Amino acid sequence: MNAPDSFSHLLARTREPFPASCKSYLIGTRADLRVPVRDIALTNGEVVSVYDTSGPYTDPQALIDVRQGLGSVRGAWIAERGDSELYEGRKPLALDDGSKSEDAARLAQLRAEAAALQRRPRRARSGANVTQMHYARKGIITPEMEFVALRENGKREWMAQYQQDAAREQRLMGNPLGASIPKIITPEFVRDEVARGRAIIPANINHPEVEPMAIGRNFLVKINANIGNSAVTSSIEEEVEKLVWAIRWGADNVMDLSTGKNIHTTRDWIVRNSPVPIGTVPIYQALEKVGGIAEDLTWEIFRDTLIEQAEQGVDYFTIHAGVRLAYIHLTAQRRTGIVSRGGSIMAKWCMAHHRESFLYEHFEDICDIMKQYDVSFSLGDGLRPGCASDANDEAQFAELHTLGELTQIAWKHDVQTMIEGPGHVPMHMIQANMTEQLKTCHEAPFYTLGPLTIDIAPGYDHIASAIGAAMIGWMGTAMLCYVTPKEHLGLPDRDDVKQGIIAYKIAAHAADVAKGHPGARARDDALSQARFDFRWQDQFNLGLDPETAQEYHDETLPKDSAKVAHFCSMCGPKFCSMKITQEVRDFAAQKGLAEADALHQGMAEKAGEFQRAGGRFYVPLHPQG
Amino acid sequence: MNAPDSFSHLLARTREPFPASCKSYLIGTRADLRVPVRDIALTNGEVVSVYDTSGPYTDPQALIDVRQGLGSVRGAWIAERGDSELYEGRKPLALDDGSKSEDAARLAQLRAEAAALQRRPRRARSGANVTQMHYARKGIITPEMEFVALRENGKREWMAQYQQDAAREQRLMGNPLGASIPKIITPEFVRDEVARGRAIIPANINHPEVEPMAIGRNFLVKINANIGNSAVTSSIEEEVEKLVWAIRWGADNVMDLSTGKNIHTTRDWIVRNSPVPIGTVPIYQALEKVGGIAEDLTWEIFRDTLIEQAEQGVDYFTIHAGVRLAYIHLTAQRRTGIVSRGGSIMAKWCMAHHRESFLYEHFEDICDIMKQYDVSFSLGDGLRPGCASDANDEAQFAELHTLGELTQIAWKHDVQTMIEGPGHVPMHMIQANMTEQLKTCHEAPFYTLGPLTIDIAPGYDHIASAIGAAMIGWMGTAMLCYVTPKEHLGLPDRDDVKQGIIAYKIAAHAADVAKGHPGARARDDALSQARFDFRWQDQFNLGLDPETAQEYHDETLPKDSAKVAHFCSMCGPKFCSMKITQEVRDFAAQKGLAEADALHQGMAEKAGEFQRAGGRFYVPLHPQG
Repeated sequence: MNAPDSFSHLLARTREPFPASCKSYLIGTRADLRVPVRDIALTNGEVVSVYDTSGPYTDPQALIDVRQGLGSVRGAWIAERGDSELYEGRKPLALDDGSKSEDAARLAQLRAEAAALQRRPRRARSGANVTQMHYARKGIITPEMEFVALRENGKREWMAQYQQDAAREQRLMGNPLGASIPKIITPEFVRDEVARGRAIIPANINHPEVEPMAIGRNFLVKINANIGNSAVTSSIEEEVEKLVWAIRWGADNVMDLSTGKNIHTTRDWIVRNSPVPIGTVPIYQALEKVGGIAEDLTWEIFRDTLIEQAEQGVDYFTIHAGVRLAYIHLTAQRRTGIVSRGGSIMAKWCMAHHRESFLYEHFEDICDIMKQYDVSFSLGDGLRPGCASDANDEAQFAELHTLGELTQIAWKHDVQTMIEGPGHVPMHMIQANMTEQLKTCHEAPFYTLGPLTIDIAPGYDHIASAIGAAMIGWMGTAMLCYVTPKEHLGLPDRDDVKQGIIAYKIAAHAADVAKGHPGARARDDALSQARFDFRWQDQFNLGLDPETAQEYHDETLPKDSAKVAHFCSMCGPKFCSMKITQEVRDFAAQKGLAEADALHQGMAEKAGEFQRAGGRFYVPLHPQG
Repeated sequence: MNAPDSFSHLLARTREPFPASCKSYLIGTRADLRVPVRDIALTNGEVVSVYDTSGPYTDPQALIDVRQGLGSVRGAWIAERGDSELYEGRKPLALDDGSKSEDAARLAQLRAEAAALQRRPRRARSGANVTQMHYARKGIITPEMEFVALRENGKREWMAQYQQDAAREQRLMGNPLGASIPKIITPEFVRDEVARGRAIIPANINHPEVEPMAIGRNFLVKINANIGNSAVTSSIEEEVEKLVWAIRWGADNVMDLSTGKNIHTTRDWIVRNSPVPIGTVPIYQALEKVGGIAEDLTWEIFRDTLIEQAEQGVDYFTIHAGVRLAYIHLTAQRRTGIVSRGGSIMAKWCMAHHRESFLYEHFEDICDIMKQYDVSFSLGDGLRPGCASDANDEAQFAELHTLGELTQIAWKHDVQTMIEGPGHVPMHMIQANMTEQLKTCHEAPFYTLGPLTIDIAPGYDHIASAIGAAMIGWMGTAMLCYVTPKEHLGLPDRDDVKQGIIAYKIAAHAADVAKGHPGARARDDALSQARFDFRWQDQFNLGLDPETAQEYHDETLPKDSAKVAHFCSMCGPKFCSMKITQEVRDFAAQKGLAEADALHQGMAEKAGEFQRAGGRFYVPLHPQG
């Protein structure tokens, strides 16, 4: 079987550093607090440093063995707090990998290959609460919070030269639409945001490999990519490579939406090898355990699944506890009914049993589990609209109000919480979603899927939704769940995942720039300057996807010499506007500027005169130049 | 040489009707007023009819011979007005095809092959004015205006079933942000919009092949695609195929930005074969005539070029008359200076001669030419920002104010006018552009390039700009000039053109939906309904790109049977949320709905009670249901 081997080769390629880039680390107040950034060396000697989600994978120094898992980032921090303990853990069940794992021998082999990934789980000592929110509210700044602060700031030194012009900065000043983003993010600011519930740091104590990150409207807008197991799980390399591919292109979080066979085992592979927070929808696995029959779900099976996944280190759970029995009939007249999988499972359960959702009824029990591991809530929007025509309807907002109620219960337990949002929303109805969410959910971070602004673009829904995502990100959404070109059509392949992520990096960055996140625009400025200076290689390397940019350029002007040429393929050597501009600038500097200024002044003063004289056009001062 | 032959085959493929689609015509008050629409036959017997830009090419009944050109749509209408006359026309010059047409024999051959495309030009009789604006202001409803009215409405009958629910229509009601879009567009409404300058109908009397369309904020948002001649012009088939490809995917207008050799001849090929308005930037050709030396340009050469192109039938001219001498120094401290080609040519000319732009000085002379042919102005934004950091600066807005001044001069001559806009603008600065343009330019239609919301996405600028385009379209921009993935990097190939157009169709449609254009959302509803009903083929066919949608679907579930299956590849047969929703709906209909309603009512009434009782959770009425 060549598959594992070929995926090993693929993974090696996926690990290659970006062009002209090297990993460096910002060191915090302790030596083991090392925050990764990517430094891009420009051809003019500048170094531009950017946020880096790719983890150790793009560090050629890092030894990676997917069968051993990543090194621990937070292990010492968690242990030092002394409020958690290793314990025996839940006893594994055959059902954990699904009710129909037909090839037991193959599964045993897959498990054995990754035996080194097994960890003894850790949980809060009896009576303790190990959530970042709990520490924050006690006034404790954790290393995780300091990590986040350093990471949000990045290296600021290089930006100074792009921010020298006070008039320009004033003109371009962002419009934060209610966000309060300080110039420098301090650890104390992070603590305060987490304490008041306006940001979360998804970081299960059983996921010490994670490089902490924050989701909150006063931080950089984050994106989430979804991955799932392969139809025929062939190897740990294949599953991990998907993760590495997603974070390479900039996924801040990854949700593992695996269904079917071997999902427990696959999850071990992913979590142990992930430097970014991993989210799941536990009801999917619970449904597998009852053979796919929604009516057969029970609180006990669900509870057991939560503990199983919390012990593995999942950082946040999507839980559709807002799909209440009383709301279900509100969807009956919708054009596309209930489109959330979790939502429809719970709706079916409620209707079959004619009783309230067990997720809603047991919500405090769920909080009790979450706080023992610091799993964050991602309160699912099971009644989100599935098309424009169902947007902002009674069902959607009824659920949102319940999510607000549940947020306050979660916060009573100091459990970190974010709120999932739609979905499909025309542009003019997006603001109402954000306004309602902020009000109803007390500023808990909003985490939206798109929204898609139209429904007629199957095959291009990453674009139809990036429009909505950029807008809602500007308005205050903290994390954007990506949509790939295959949305509504099929399973995304490797390139689809990349296309979805890049579209969402664009949306998130557009939101950061609009909000006026300090320094967000500096990278745009550096790239634009490179463009103007005809530093082609720098223009490629500062972009979101250097390889594609270079490839597109080379299709028209493939010769290496073209990359230092002071013209580009659109206009050719005679006709290049940037070249002409440089000439204009030189000319103005030489002799024209002072004169032109005087001319401009004179004209402004004389404008009234010309009008009175009936003269429509400027009468040139130097008729024949 | 196989090239012409292979392009003939390509063109034949590019002409194929869309799947399940056929061309039909709405007939106006005269038999020769036939407005094309595309009818999509759904598998459930419905017919959905959509706006169709593709011209006769997608009509299998139409005989197309690119060496003869398209049939005349407007010829009789123009002749009947009796205010224009055929005349000898300007004498062709060798320079018309550029100053360095090295292979005279080849050029002669190219011209001879298309000799049948030569037309005797037509112009206004002495003292007459043949612009649509002139007629409109005299109270005349032209066939062109009626054509536009029918076209904007399309067939409305099929929409009724998607608009039955008054509560839904109320909830989804658009937010026109100042637009005034009537439920039904009447010919009189079109006349009034054209008369007041709020819309234009680009329709040169020498382009009788055009199917009239309107650009204005109270009509559907339109898109423009740019094409250019090939490096080595091989054949008429190749150049025409580019045009046909662009309008197939939905370009409402096409700008021919050809430079270099044979551009006069190429333009004949394009205009004679184009059912959509063609725009050009005449200064490009004028520059070719003076060997690429901007300083050598003269009013006489430019004027001659305007007449040359007006006689060929170009429908609108981009003219950078707002780049005034006094504004040039305002760009000196920009990050990327002047990025418009036309703008930088004129800036160079002004600086070299130290005098005011001849375009500005001769603006009334230009108007005199435009009104003899009904060429519309597209007043160029030569000082538009080339990067986010130059957005909304003094240079940009100084020029915009001048464009407003020029608009009023153009209107004095009844010359139709639209205004070009940026470019590169972060999201939070877009509204200011629209507001300033509406105010300064007296509601003349705005025609923007993007704008790009960020600068770090080379290779994906169609997405970075579709975000800005959708927003500014909603705010009131009438036409969006597309951006392809190759923007800033190289020349777009055939697929890039398609990608750019689809991204802009998404932006334009998102804007129409947000503005609440009557019926815009009906196609989304029809597609969403097909999605919910698992009518896969209808879902593909109602989309912007049926072939890609189907291809993506088939990658995961290639069997034909899957296209009628009541599940999709994302979830499989057991796990499909839409399937579950249908079950929920059936269940609710059977027995649950009345009960659930009662339950919901009861809960609302009891909410206070529960609160007072300290009960947080709903106590189920049917504990074991």
